[in-house]
Amino acid sequence: MIHDSRSRLDPVAFDAVHFADTFWAPRIKLVREQTIPFQYQQCKETGRIDALRLDWKPGQEPVPHIFWESDIAKWLEAASYSLAVHPDPELDDLVDQVVALLAGAQQHDGYLNVYFTVVEPGCRWTDLRDAHELYCAGHLIEAGVAHFQATGKRQLLEVVQRYADHIATVFGQDPGQKRGYCGHEEIELALVKLYRATGSEKYLRLSQYFVDERGRKPFYFEQEAEERATPGFFSTMFPEREQERAKFREYNQSHLPMREQTEVVGHAVRAMYLYCAMADLAREVGDVSLAQACERLWQHLTTKRMYLTGGIGSSRANEGFTSDYDLPNESAYAETCAAVGLVFWAHRMLHLDCDGHYADVLERALYNGVLSGISLDGKRFFYVNPLASAGDAHRYEWFGCACCPPNIARLLSSLGQYFYSQSASELVVHLYASGQAQLQVGGQALTVQQTTSYPWDGAVRLVAEQLAEPTTFNIKLRIPGWCSEPAVRVNGAAVNVAASLKKGYVSIERTWQAGDVIELELPMAIKRVYAHPAVEADQGCVALQRGPIVYCLEGVDHASVPLQELELPVSQPLQATFHPDLLDGVVALHGSALATNQAAWDGQLYTSRPPDMQETPLTAIPYYAWDNRQPGEMRVWIHEHRS
Amino acid sequence: MIHDSRSRLDPVAFDAVHFADTFWAPRIKLVREQTIPFQYQQCKETGRIDALRLDWKPGQEPVPHIFWESDIAKWLEAASYSLAVHPDPELDDLVDQVVALLAGAQQHDGYLNVYFTVVEPGCRWTDLRDAHELYCAGHLIEAGVAHFQATGKRQLLEVVQRYADHIATVFGQDPGQKRGYCGHEEIELALVKLYRATGSEKYLRLSQYFVDERGRKPFYFEQEAEERATPGFFSTMFPEREQERAKFREYNQSHLPMREQTEVVGHAVRAMYLYCAMADLAREVGDVSLAQACERLWQHLTTKRMYLTGGIGSSRANEGFTSDYDLPNESAYAETCAAVGLVFWAHRMLHLDCDGHYADVLERALYNGVLSGISLDGKRFFYVNPLASAGDAHRYEWFGCACCPPNIARLLSSLGQYFYSQSASELVVHLYASGQAQLQVGGQALTVQQTTSYPWDGAVRLVAEQLAEPTTFNIKLRIPGWCSEPAVRVNGAAVNVAASLKKGYVSIERTWQAGDVIELELPMAIKRVYAHPAVEADQGCVALQRGPIVYCLEGVDHASVPLQELELPVSQPLQATFHPDLLDGVVALHGSALATNQAAWDGQLYTSRPPDMQETPLTAIPYYAWDNRQPGEMRVWIHEHRS
Repeated sequence: MIHDSRSRLDPVAFDAVHFADTFWAPRIKLVREQTIPFQYQQCKETGRIDALRLDWKPGQEPVPHIFWESDIAKWLEAASYSLAVHPDPELDDLVDQVVALLAGAQQHDGYLNVYFTVVEPGCRWTDLRDAHELYCAGHLIEAGVAHFQATGKRQLLEVVQRYADHIATVFGQDPGQKRGYCGHEEIELALVKLYRATGSEKYLRLSQYFVDERGRKPFYFEQEAEERATPGFFSTMFPEREQERAKFREYNQSHLPMREQTEVVGHAVRAMYLYCAMADLAREVGDVSLAQACERLWQHLTTKRMYLTGGIGSSRANEGFTSDYDLPNESAYAETCAAVGLVFWAHRMLHLDCDGHYADVLERALYNGVLSGISLDGKRFFYVNPLASAGDAHRYEWFGCACCPPNIARLLSSLGQYFYSQSASELVVHLYASGQAQLQVGGQALTVQQTTSYPWDGAVRLVAEQLAEPTTFNIKLRIPGWCSEPAVRVNGAAVNVAASLKKGYVSIERTWQAGDVIELELPMAIKRVYAHPAVEADQGCVALQRGPIVYCLEGVDHASVPLQELELPVSQPLQATFHPDLLDGVVALHGSALATNQAAWDGQLYTSRPPDMQETPLTAIPYYAWDNRQPGEMRVWIHEHRS
Repeated sequence: MIHDSRSRLDPVAFDAVHFADTFWAPRIKLVREQTIPFQYQQCKETGRIDALRLDWKPGQEPVPHIFWESDIAKWLEAASYSLAVHPDPELDDLVDQVVALLAGAQQHDGYLNVYFTVVEPGCRWTDLRDAHELYCAGHLIEAGVAHFQATGKRQLLEVVQRYADHIATVFGQDPGQKRGYCGHEEIELALVKLYRATGSEKYLRLSQYFVDERGRKPFYFEQEAEERATPGFFSTMFPEREQERAKFREYNQSHLPMREQTEVVGHAVRAMYLYCAMADLAREVGDVSLAQACERLWQHLTTKRMYLTGGIGSSRANEGFTSDYDLPNESAYAETCAAVGLVFWAHRMLHLDCDGHYADVLERALYNGVLSGISLDGKRFFYVNPLASAGDAHRYEWFGCACCPPNIARLLSSLGQYFYSQSASELVVHLYASGQAQLQVGGQALTVQQTTSYPWDGAVRLVAEQLAEPTTFNIKLRIPGWCSEPAVRVNGAAVNVAASLKKGYVSIERTWQAGDVIELELPMAIKRVYAHPAVEADQGCVALQRGPIVYCLEGVDHASVPLQELELPVSQPLQATFHPDLLDGVVALHGSALATNQAAWDGQLYTSRPPDMQETPLTAIPYYAWDNRQPGEMRVWIHEHRS
């Protein structure tokens, strides 16, 4: 059953939203002016681009790497989005050159992968678990769709269609086909995008096949390894894999059929990409069992295994999940890509069921765990996003495994789509930022103008502009979960929020006309946040949040005392102050903490005199902005002095 | 310069003290009846004993291990001590058999090491860093001295003298001698014991040589490895050793000459044994620079790197020290042998300078970090002594590397020597337990009868018995550092403690006669203990101590709430109650803690409502006695609710 797509709620196109704010617009500009050119340069200098010429010879350095297409594809995707909202002939030309190289690298049968064309030409599809072949194909498909949507040019779309067509001949349940799927999920969600862009259901079916086949017995990856009878990629990275088969099945979520999975396990980015595809399929084909599986996994993730920042995957060992409530701060992995993946998944869940809980998590990850991944100057990146640091964690310019920087770039370059959704009868506003959106509701074109200082202030003014004739439809406005006393006015008249609030959204159904004004007041009280008592790392601690922004302490603001020694009294008032010159303009929180008076300490390691505490000033800055000044300590969870 | 030994303070002989208490006497009996026979059986069953027959042939299993003599030697040492205080013809006979086997294994030149006689016969002294050859020799020497002192039999003493004589020909600064020293210190302190037992200064000189040579450039172990040009022992265990030379020099304290060392570093047991020898040498030859080095290292250890239990060496990676204040609880290594070594070192420091601070640390380690190493039934052992456990740490019956069980056995079998010291003019009482001691003070034989319920009660009664004639001498009684309001009476008359307390001891000089009674009152208030604020693991936490006993919480007493969720209010009164049937009779602490009301928790991972706390009963038991009931969680440091 394919759903009727006319009545359903869809995200707006990413280029329908124009940012005119001081928070996102400068960041998107940075991505355009700094990150995208810099990433191209990195792809070029490291040999990734030129490898597409397929002229590599054995013995030559560098050897093309199995990941390389994914980096190029994510750069292409980000560059395409950027071109759509900010035409740039030079970038357009550069993109066309790379697309031509990709087209030239495609084989006659549609296959497109440098490594398995020039380095190991006889070994296509022999190591699905680790060789990332379908993963790279997925990113190429996403790039092809983005390039087409952004520029209208079909060349790359056609390249990836031919590749997808080839893949559809190789994989499936028909005789002679491989019953495999990728060890690093990604192609599943890409194929749904390709279906949406082309209308060709074969791509939807192929995605369904990959999702349905996963986790069935006999386990494909183990069969494949036996048949191949060579060690395969990463055999040295995971020497214990044979002894711990169950654990390594979980690593790539292939331990059980997806509809039987109830816990988020394994590699976090892989999990997110897979869950995205599951939510997409649930929506496109109305598959209730997949939707229920998504909902179970979502509940598990967000109530047991997610950092306050929206970071996920606490362990470096598997770049992924460990056990419930195991959320260490200093050793947190919380890969940037995983937080990006959570935004992707939350967005899809929101379109299965427009519940503010999904948008709350999306917003949490976006403003915190994602944004911390990129420096204020757009040039340095965190791969790993700890919630505490002794001072030795810093952003780097580029990574050998370069997944995170282009992932942030493609997210920020297409950010508009996360702000609004629309259907024939409804307009939904999920996020707030100054700017303009071109929408289609009730058969009418509508321009909405937002004015706000979000995320620093919760006053939002929405004006309906350019609505040709008065039209009756519903507007839903998200009331963020962090906001306890919201107020809404339409043309100056108060809306009964309590009565019209449902699943985190206030609904206002009326006949709208041009010039109508909606005003939201979302008071941003400073909130003290406590973690579930089973989270050992946060016991006795408190975190600070204001609006969607999670705060942290940095050493540079507390030179006289190590951060772990600060105790924030439970009744200590805190003030929020906007500092235009601090960290590109942020609201910082100020107050007073207690710290052990070390001068009064008797020099002993242990003492039975209660510590003598003295007041010391406390300053908290947004978590995303840490490590942009003098290097030093950082921590999100502060000891609370409960007196 | 050799000191005049007549005027100096010496520990009493271990067999001069007879325990008649309910704390130590049953433990010493357990060691005698359980641990010593069990350890012999283990040495026998694992092939350690029979390997002394030197009939091993290549290909035969088990292959004699380089550590084996040390296990046999520590058993011999413990068995000898036991024989001295509790004659046992059967054990005496068994000891004689093992001594005869050792004598038979000795080579014509005096060399005595099974591994390098039968397994790698050409490789003597080629891997001093890792092969433990001089380490094993040291334990044999300690066993030879103990056997002689305990039984008067000279056979083993003569064997180890011949071995030491041989070693003295191999090592030294003369032409043709090796300028080496052992990677695992031990022989240095053993040679001082051999000197004291035989009066032969050559052993003292050899010990001096080993201590003085250590850390000189060029670094012997690196030269040795180059000359040997084979990987050596443990090359696979430390593959990074070549890249991290500085770190691995610290591992065995050979990075600097000992007089230049100011920080305790590297493998904790090795450090302790070396510092013991340094303190011994400082005392025997009046070497002030060595005494100063000891004092610096002591200060560093006890103010920066020691657990509350007297456990030392926080890291499993090097079985040793890391950085200042790095004292994690659950991952604490705190090897039992290291705590035993700390007792040894503290005892020697106390005889360089009779300062209660040394005795306080000795007592802390003895009643806590050492005693935790052995189960109440004397059959199971902790090698590693964490200060918190999720429930997965339990004592084992035996270890492949079997250093800890016999180390506890030899300490407890010779415990008497730690209780009293004596000189021509002074009697010092360091520790308290019911029993009788045969002393020599002022040229007079004196018997002291102690009566006390220590460590459960601080009332101590000392009666001078069998003093032939009234004699003037000084009696010093230790006032433990944990005791804030001590009282002392002589024959019922109060002593002015404030006036006569110096360096932790009350001095009473008078003419003593038989029947004189000293009464001490050492009130055992329950103390809340706080760690230095730089100890991150203990921030916001409190530990409980009463008398010398450090307490912990166990899961079995708190079934309804995980221990990490308990918060002890700062003003919560606690009661101490003796339970004769609990854990062989202990004082437990009882009170009330707060815990998050999980029923009232809203199911969210994060919330901005302060946790709703409810009262829950709290029971703390002595740390040493944990893991003797139902397995489960344990923690020493409890979150403190500071309200």
